[in-house]
Amino acid sequence: MTQDLLLKNVRPMAGAATDMLLRGGRIARIAPGQEAAGALVEDGGGALVIPGLVEAHTHLDKTLWGMGWVPNSAGPRLIDKIDNERRLKHELGIDPARQSARQVVQSLRMGTTQIRTHVDVDVAVGVAGIAGVMETRARFADSMDIEVVAFPQSGILAHAGTVELLEEAMRMGSDVVGGLDPCGIDRDPKGHLDVVFGLAERFGKPVDIHLHELGLLGAFSMELIFERIRALGMQGRVTVSHAFCLGDPDAAMVGALLDEIAALDVAIMTTGPASRPAPPVARLLAMGIRTCAGSDGIRDTWQPYGTADMLERAMLVGLRNNFRRDDELSMALAVCTTGGAATMRTEGYGLEEGCTADLVLVPGETLAEAIVSRPERALVVKRGRVVARAGHALVQAP
Amino acid sequence: MTQDLLLKNVRPMAGAATDMLLRGGRIARIAPGQEAAGALVEDGGGALVIPGLVEAHTHLDKTLWGMGWVPNSAGPRLIDKIDNERRLKHELGIDPARQSARQVVQSLRMGTTQIRTHVDVDVAVGVAGIAGVMETRARFADSMDIEVVAFPQSGILAHAGTVELLEEAMRMGSDVVGGLDPCGIDRDPKGHLDVVFGLAERFGKPVDIHLHELGLLGAFSMELIFERIRALGMQGRVTVSHAFCLGDPDAAMVGALLDEIAALDVAIMTTGPASRPAPPVARLLAMGIRTCAGSDGIRDTWQPYGTADMLERAMLVGLRNNFRRDDELSMALAVCTTGGAATMRTEGYGLEEGCTADLVLVPGETLAEAIVSRPERALVVKRGRVVARAGHALVQAP
Repeated sequence: MTQDLLLKNVRPMAGAATDMLLRGGRIARIAPGQEAAGALVEDGGGALVIPGLVEAHTHLDKTLWGMGWVPNSAGPRLIDKIDNERRLKHELGIDPARQSARQVVQSLRMGTTQIRTHVDVDVAVGVAGIAGVMETRARFADSMDIEVVAFPQSGILAHAGTVELLEEAMRMGSDVVGGLDPCGIDRDPKGHLDVVFGLAERFGKPVDIHLHELGLLGAFSMELIFERIRALGMQGRVTVSHAFCLGDPDAAMVGALLDEIAALDVAIMTTGPASRPAPPVARLLAMGIRTCAGSDGIRDTWQPYGTADMLERAMLVGLRNNFRRDDELSMALAVCTTGGAATMRTEGYGLEEGCTADLVLVPGETLAEAIVSRPERALVVKRGRVVARAGHALVQAP
Repeated sequence: MTQDLLLKNVRPMAGAATDMLLRGGRIARIAPGQEAAGALVEDGGGALVIPGLVEAHTHLDKTLWGMGWVPNSAGPRLIDKIDNERRLKHELGIDPARQSARQVVQSLRMGTTQIRTHVDVDVAVGVAGIAGVMETRARFADSMDIEVVAFPQSGILAHAGTVELLEEAMRMGSDVVGGLDPCGIDRDPKGHLDVVFGLAERFGKPVDIHLHELGLLGAFSMELIFERIRALGMQGRVTVSHAFCLGDPDAAMVGALLDEIAALDVAIMTTGPASRPAPPVARLLAMGIRTCAGSDGIRDTWQPYGTADMLERAMLVGLRNNFRRDDELSMALAVCTTGGAATMRTEGYGLEEGCTADLVLVPGETLAEAIVSRPERALVVKRGRVVARAGHALVQAP
């Protein structure tokens, strides 16, 4: 049993200073002036408390974190990047267990307490990525919740044997069936989506599809996804990641898609991409659409950016959506916290009494200040236990 | 006379480790294994050395840095933001001398060694902003070079008396004549630009115009600017800041503008804006166009973002331009260093022997890593003298 933890002088969501008693992995009581015999006591010094940050889209299995700097010289086309990755995975020995562990520790010290990761499944790596990330999930079970998406990075139909590998990945305990640009990669959107949704039905798991396709092509793929959600009754169980087509200037097209997304309770993931059309976050939230954010790849063969800091992601989402007012910045933080939890259907997530005690202490006056300043995380707590302090994780990466 | 400074074990532009001897404010010698009697010695520990970062566009006079968090609740229109600013300047007592000093110190600890700042001149504040920033410029003369742009934030023709205030600002020693959206604000592009270029001609100073106008409207304003450059022979002496219209999808229009920009040696400033069309940096550089970057306002009444970190700006420029390869990230760094110096025509800027000893030590393996990681600056040197160390400025802000 975890020892009780009493956080003194903290400000939940930048509100008034109070004390929070954490007991049995949950938030037991929020009230000022608490004493608790036998509890560990932490003085928050007036820091903000936010619920644990949620990394709703990343690729733990292939970060290069901690491997020395690997120069990126990949060509401009998608296929160049996929080929470059396949070559470097082999040449560099990108070990999924080791690398995912390194990113988990980095995420943790930045205040992330749960992660959804897409893990490559293809005929080159088979299910080695899944196995490696599962190893990391077990290793850090007390510090980080990790949801695994079986992700067909190289397509499904283009390489015989991929369907069987995806099945194996699901049998190994993957939580979500992944998919990728149904038109663009496999050149067979019906075939691709039938496999993805077929697996989801057979294994009783939700779906999370990467959709980079732009404009009408993306809209077409979305419609095919909607049709399958309706046919299989998968309302509320599908996420579309990136969804660049929702940033299209064609307002009528986007409006129609958003209406369907709201009606079918599809969740949308955005990274707040500066160089691509992006889903309009304020509009999605106003429509009640579950909207989350992620880092996508962190320092991998695709691109060099990223520090796994979901407060920085909130800033990038804010900048992309031209959020300036404090209430707008709160929306950016919401997609990096509650929006991720809503997407992953995390039970007990939040800062109320009774919620799971996953939380982060950050110095700052307001939530907006925390986002624009992104100071060192004073304390990160997972299920009532301190897992990082003063920017340092209390667990070790390999 | 500044004491000689010997930097041991440093890697200029991430190259091979060497020693750099700084003497009389200049880089005297770059060679390994140097000894120098009487010199201060700093062990660089293998850190990268880059030339001093250049903040080529900011608004020192109106940052809220250090004033406690000021919630932003301004309306969505440009006029809402201008009105909001005017009200808050009065209500909060935003002192230009104090505030500019605070931002200068923050910039300095982040490795910036020169700044071009646009300073409000209008009938509400008169030239008080200019006077305040001039005070800061004198105060930090040994630590930071500051170029002052007399900036008509509220328009010129819309408020009688502004022209006279701009004249006064130039007589007070402003270095550059500013301007702002010739169509959008004054509703009289010819009138606006005639005043701006008229002042530039009379005072013999360059021009730097904010141009947020989009698409064809921005292109029209640019053409009016080109006409005046040609008529007055001001080739090489005009900067267009933001230049959103260069990010327009109309390739023919953009191509024609870029040809003129190259021919007239106009410099372009970009912040790498995520929510606006942006000048295509790689293309500008390939055409030999002087291209620089800036933070724009830092934590002011317009918007809350910014830490005055020009390595972070390089990251944002990189993200906006979809720069992924190491050579592309070097371009992002170039606009935050050499591009700024080229825009401000800074003599002796660079890392070669004989150049002014303005430089920054940053831990990291490569330039790309410095941009994506943005570590604490180990040492900042201005004209051969250490002005910041381990992320802390050695001068005090008020």
